[in-house]
Amino acid sequence: MSDADAEAEPIDVDFGEDGLVPAVAQDADSGEVLMLAYVSPEALARTRETGEAHYYSRSREELWHKGGSSGHTQSVREVRVDCDADTLLYLVEQTGGACHTGHRSCFHRTIDGENVGERVFDPDEVY
Amino acid sequence: MSDADAEAEPIDVDFGEDGLVPAVAQDADSGEVLMLAYVSPEALARTRETGEAHYYSRSREELWHKGGSSGHTQSVREVRVDCDADTLLYLVEQTGGACHTGHRSCFHRTIDGENVGERVFDPDEVY
Repeated sequence: MSDADAEAEPIDVDFGEDGLVPAVAQDADSGEVLMLAYVSPEALARTRETGEAHYYSRSREELWHKGGSSGHTQSVREVRVDCDADTLLYLVEQTGGACHTGHRSCFHRTIDGENVGERVFDPDEVY
Repeated sequence: MSDADAEAEPIDVDFGEDGLVPAVAQDADSGEVLMLAYVSPEALARTRETGEAHYYSRSREELWHKGGSSGHTQSVREVRVDCDADTLLYLVEQTGGACHTGHRSCFHRTIDGENVGERVFDPDEVY
C-alpha cells in the first residue's frame, strides 16, 4: 500500500517549548545513522537554503554549521519529518566523519562499550 | 582503521536533567530509520532484560512497551550509544509497522509534505 498520491502540503514543524527539535542524520547511501543533534527554526531554514546541514549547538548556544571548521560537512539530500512533526531526519552525504572522535558515526559503541564503528580520521589533525 | 580491540567497558548513559534520552529505532536489516522516542533508565533496563524495545511515553508519563497493545513490537538486536552517551540507537526487528498511522516508519513524509513511506497496516483495525 502507498498513499504517495495524497496532496502534499508543507509540514509545520512543532518546535515545542524550547524551540528545538531533535534531528537524526542518516547517510543517504549506506543508511548508517551518523548522529543526532538539535535544530532550531533558523538552523532548519539555513539547511534548506544552503543544502548543508545546520544544527543548534546547545552547549555553545548558537547556530552550528556542521563541518564549518573541520570541513566534514553534510550535504542534505532530503529532510523528512516524523508523524508528530517534532523530529527531523536529514538524509545526508557525509564528508569525512560525523563524529568529533574521528569515527564515521557517533554511534560507534554498543552499550556494553564494544567499539563497532569505523574510524576515518585522526581528530588531532582536524580540530 | 578500527579500534575494535580497545578494552570494552559498559557505557554510563547520561540521562540528563529530565532523566530521559532520545532513542532512534532503526531496522536492523534494511537500515530504515523507524522512529524516535524517549528512554528512561527503567525503559532501558526493561529493554535489556526482555529484548523488546521499551520507551518512556512523555504524554502518558509512563513506561511504554512498544507494541504492547498493537502487537507491533520491536525485537532489539543491539543497543548503541553515541559519543556523548546521551542518545541511544536501537537496532530492531520491527513487527508490522512502527508508526501509529500504519506506516512502516514514522518518517514517511518529506518536509514538503510528500509521502514517501510505505503503509503496512490499517490503524483502524489495530488500535
